[in-house]
Amino acid sequence: MPSQPLVIFTPSGKRGHFPVGTPVLTAARQLGVDLDSVCGGRGICSKCQVSPSFGEFPKHGVTVGQDALSPWNAVEERYDSIRGLPKGRRLGCQATVQGDVVIDVPSESQVHRQVVRKEATLRTIVMDPATHLYYVEVAEPDMHEPTGDLERLAAALEAQWGIGGIVAPMPVLRKLQPVLRKGKWAVTVALNKGHRDPVHRLIDIYPGFHEGRIYGLAIDLGSTTIAAHLCDLRNGNVIGSAGVMNPQIRFGEDLMSRVSYAMMNPGGDVEMTTAVRAAINSLAQSLASEAAIWPEQIMELVFVCNPVMHHLLLGIDPVELGQAPFALATSNSLSFDASELALDQVNAAARVFVLPCIAGHVGADAAAVALAEEPDKSDDMVLIVDVGTNAELLLGNKSRVLACSSPTGPAFEGAQISAGQRAAPGAIERVEIDALTKTPRFKVIGCDLWSDDPGFGPATAATGVTGICGSGIIEVVAEMRMAGILDQRGLIGSAEQVGSARCISEGRTHSYLLHDASAEGGNRITVTQGDIRAIQLAKAALYAGARLLMDEMGVQSVDRIVLAGAFGAHISPKHAMVLGMIPDAPLDKVTSAGNAAGTGARIALCSVEARRAIEATVRQIHKVETAIEPRFQEHFVNASAIPHATDGFPNLDQVLRLPELNFNTQSGGGEGGRRRRARD
Amino acid sequence: MPSQPLVIFTPSGKRGHFPVGTPVLTAARQLGVDLDSVCGGRGICSKCQVSPSFGEFPKHGVTVGQDALSPWNAVEERYDSIRGLPKGRRLGCQATVQGDVVIDVPSESQVHRQVVRKEATLRTIVMDPATHLYYVEVAEPDMHEPTGDLERLAAALEAQWGIGGIVAPMPVLRKLQPVLRKGKWAVTVALNKGHRDPVHRLIDIYPGFHEGRIYGLAIDLGSTTIAAHLCDLRNGNVIGSAGVMNPQIRFGEDLMSRVSYAMMNPGGDVEMTTAVRAAINSLAQSLASEAAIWPEQIMELVFVCNPVMHHLLLGIDPVELGQAPFALATSNSLSFDASELALDQVNAAARVFVLPCIAGHVGADAAAVALAEEPDKSDDMVLIVDVGTNAELLLGNKSRVLACSSPTGPAFEGAQISAGQRAAPGAIERVEIDALTKTPRFKVIGCDLWSDDPGFGPATAATGVTGICGSGIIEVVAEMRMAGILDQRGLIGSAEQVGSARCISEGRTHSYLLHDASAEGGNRITVTQGDIRAIQLAKAALYAGARLLMDEMGVQSVDRIVLAGAFGAHISPKHAMVLGMIPDAPLDKVTSAGNAAGTGARIALCSVEARRAIEATVRQIHKVETAIEPRFQEHFVNASAIPHATDGFPNLDQVLRLPELNFNTQSGGGEGGRRRRARD
Repeated sequence: MPSQPLVIFTPSGKRGHFPVGTPVLTAARQLGVDLDSVCGGRGICSKCQVSPSFGEFPKHGVTVGQDALSPWNAVEERYDSIRGLPKGRRLGCQATVQGDVVIDVPSESQVHRQVVRKEATLRTIVMDPATHLYYVEVAEPDMHEPTGDLERLAAALEAQWGIGGIVAPMPVLRKLQPVLRKGKWAVTVALNKGHRDPVHRLIDIYPGFHEGRIYGLAIDLGSTTIAAHLCDLRNGNVIGSAGVMNPQIRFGEDLMSRVSYAMMNPGGDVEMTTAVRAAINSLAQSLASEAAIWPEQIMELVFVCNPVMHHLLLGIDPVELGQAPFALATSNSLSFDASELALDQVNAAARVFVLPCIAGHVGADAAAVALAEEPDKSDDMVLIVDVGTNAELLLGNKSRVLACSSPTGPAFEGAQISAGQRAAPGAIERVEIDALTKTPRFKVIGCDLWSDDPGFGPATAATGVTGICGSGIIEVVAEMRMAGILDQRGLIGSAEQVGSARCISEGRTHSYLLHDASAEGGNRITVTQGDIRAIQLAKAALYAGARLLMDEMGVQSVDRIVLAGAFGAHISPKHAMVLGMIPDAPLDKVTSAGNAAGTGARIALCSVEARRAIEATVRQIHKVETAIEPRFQEHFVNASAIPHATDGFPNLDQVLRLPELNFNTQSGGGEGGRRRRARD
Repeated sequence: MPSQPLVIFTPSGKRGHFPVGTPVLTAARQLGVDLDSVCGGRGICSKCQVSPSFGEFPKHGVTVGQDALSPWNAVEERYDSIRGLPKGRRLGCQATVQGDVVIDVPSESQVHRQVVRKEATLRTIVMDPATHLYYVEVAEPDMHEPTGDLERLAAALEAQWGIGGIVAPMPVLRKLQPVLRKGKWAVTVALNKGHRDPVHRLIDIYPGFHEGRIYGLAIDLGSTTIAAHLCDLRNGNVIGSAGVMNPQIRFGEDLMSRVSYAMMNPGGDVEMTTAVRAAINSLAQSLASEAAIWPEQIMELVFVCNPVMHHLLLGIDPVELGQAPFALATSNSLSFDASELALDQVNAAARVFVLPCIAGHVGADAAAVALAEEPDKSDDMVLIVDVGTNAELLLGNKSRVLACSSPTGPAFEGAQISAGQRAAPGAIERVEIDALTKTPRFKVIGCDLWSDDPGFGPATAATGVTGICGSGIIEVVAEMRMAGILDQRGLIGSAEQVGSARCISEGRTHSYLLHDASAEGGNRITVTQGDIRAIQLAKAALYAGARLLMDEMGVQSVDRIVLAGAFGAHISPKHAMVLGMIPDAPLDKVTSAGNAAGTGARIALCSVEARRAIEATVRQIHKVETAIEPRFQEHFVNASAIPHATDGFPNLDQVLRLPELNFNTQSGGGEGGRRRRARD
């Protein structure tokens, strides 16, 4: 029909001929152009803003005149006068096609807009949330055609939005009638449809056209810390983040001690479940309160967690995860009502999505890391290490991805370390030791100055120097090694051997004095031989896991390493490599991904398509079980030592040459040294 | 393949050729013969028992030799020695086809067996419950192929039963792991799939092969009484019935007073919801306890109720049902978890089904009556009257069904009657009055003797004569009319007019003395003019509803009348017609259906197909709204009088000729008489 004007949408390039008078929104819908609308074309919501272009378009072969769209109408005038319409913009539901026209859909008018993550690795999230708002006008009840209010609402959603299959959970059913009447039969509904749901669920209903925003919580439920991001479900923006200690710590610091607690104490699993749910409720409440939103606005929660946390969150006794064959009660992703977990600081009809677990030791947190870092799409052979009380490791590229977990224990989080503490103001997080004088300088959390900078004392007067956090302990041990205070087996030398009075005799072993403010009533902070041993065990477990995956993959080296986890974000790659936490790699190829599990949770929160994708990916990831693999033990024993720079660490050796030391000749060589000799 | 034996199943007549050695169960499955099996052919459950026939079968054209099936095998021997196999029976999963054979599937081996109802109207229920047991053998977990226990269970159900799409609610997920291990990876699961469910829900799981029975509750939630039947979900048998008063009565006797209570008292609806749910819990508990079963064995509940009860059960404020246009929050049938209603005396994962409502005044109880009585399948024009505090009426036949409700008030249940009481031992339920002497005789509930029989006094000594129940009040009023104590306007004559000292002056009106045991310290029971007025109002409402439906249908008479409701079961058709409660009809065409709503609930409990059918039927039933129909008022006013036998009641007149009386000539004719004159 050549008489009908040609309408071309950018950036999609979709085009078609439409009769004069066709609203732009209608044309967009018919062409499948991604143009948002909440009010269904009634000129209320302004989500369908478009930018028409005028002039010559040789590329498209059209000339667009100033009269290609209908003139501004009263609805647009009113909207502009009240709220302001950006220059050049039109409301797609009001402007009608009058001639050939090129129409740009700005990204904020797209439902499936791309959101660029601000974190380290630049990648985009295509917004595709499970929950959307829809404005709908419902037929009034009629005594002669008796149908329920819900059935008329469903009919209206079908007629006005093409949405069939509506289910109203009890909390919504209870408020349906008063809200419909308050809105004079016009309401805005929040509908949720997960990627496996055959129906839409009514999460909430508001009288009239509702402009309120809707939110979701992406929760990284760790053994030690519970971190949550409050996200705007329209654009994926994080409007608040918070973390609390996992209150289950009082039942056991690491996963296995919690499993033991459940095994030894009847009802112990229920205690832990109750505790963690209460913490999540209080986290949700404080995030909502800080963001000045109502808990009812939180409509979805996505959880990532390791298998033990997964089971304890769901109220499943984790006992099977404590013994071979480490069987999960369920491994697939789960969708259910938040009320089933007694999560009551969110919308009463809020939905929960839990990512799938990869295996009994590699949980939904590892799945989330895979979703965020996409090893399955990498050309390079990438090793992703999510450092925590339990470390998850992923190794692979486009062809194949392997996964394992490694029981590092809580040393990296500051536990089992004499001066260890969690990351909080006053904790030492960065350390440098002068190789000649053996004198340390350090920084504490909450202060940008180094300890030898002028003004450090006054600047830290409020907090003091309270201890060493996880990243600090890694740095100080690595620096001790580089400064020749520690030999490659991990022994601290004596004052004579090292040539520093900071090496203090503690019976048969030595400590290194990092900080002493005891004269001023402050803390005296040392690194003991026991601290070194704890870190050696933890890093050996991590390294052994990585080596096991490399063996399985048949590679001797990796192209790049990603340190993930809230803690991983703070580790210095150089120090991690000096310590032998990770395999050798070019230092510039060791990057931090921040809290990748949390990022994966956010992606799943923002996109049902991503949920579908990670389910498929998880089925492709091959699990390697460390607990029964003899080579893991072998790697673990071999990895206890702090590596020779020249022994299998060529990249590290390029950067720094570590001193060859052996303090073990002295009588106080310690039990660890003897035991290792026996194994050699 | 002529070399393969012919297998013929009776009663289905299905036949086919199968290789020698094919198990009978396998042949039955391939032919689609309805042969039960819970264990999937493992010789455990014995549900697949069949009876082979031997000899000549000219009808089928086969001769069956004694060796047509394989000989008894060890599994059958063992089963027979432990549990006994009826003579001539074989286990279908063990016996294999060896030659041409005719095999009868006894009704107890059919899944979709027909169950003949024992109630008044003989009809069959085809068993098709939503919940079934399945025995399944699950693969053990394997560290090298990590999948969750639930996923392996789902795979086993798919492989062994062809059942895909399994969802485990939290209560089952929590017990899954210990039960699988206790059963050594063999379990019996209870799976539920409603007629609209895309998936099967795991309701419960048992270690090994589980022989326990599973049950459902069919609940008729009335304004005054809550009645429940505990049904075996395998065969539909009622193994227990119980009823309790609806505790909401303390908030208002009839529906509208409960709606008013909700309107006048903030939180009043919540109080009533809590009360009714507590009563249902205690009913479930006592039924389970009496039947000596565990509450966990109750896996489904089906509710029928009027719209106000429906909303209060679901926790929806019923305020909209108290005012035009009487909009229901939802009219379709509902399926959800029992836990959503805080019903905790049943299985933790039990499912609820609520029948659809027809309209704001005609509820799921009327739908249940339609399901039980099937007016839409009747050749005759049938009027079904469900008498209660609110009466529901259905009128129709195969071509068309109409429905309405009528606010009869609680008089028929003994309320608003001076000596009224609910049906309980000691209550007068049957009355006869001698037309000459005006002397009454009566029967009370709990005693088979008439009051003038020898031994009545001693037989009723324990209870006494305490009052008049609903059916008794109808009989006494009708008998008073037949005995000439009451004129056709409903006035009780004076002692002189009637010629009996039992007519006692009460100021301007009279009472009739039915029973006087005051000399012995017992009760003195009279029927007052106020009682007559209350019954006149109630019966006029009922009659007006029936007339309105007849007007709408365009008929002057009906072919038959069904009195439904627990109360309807006790009404004498003759007395109901004398009173003018129901339209004229041949007396032998007036029958009682017992608690048809409760029967409808049972049918829906036993058959998902019936649920689908009643949903379709309800959409076809045309609702007539009495509250706004002027003709209803007209019929109501005209129906206040107790009918002339000769005036529009030809069938009644054939049976008895009522005296023409008018006591209104006396000065004490009463307000009612004057008011009616003013209207004439």
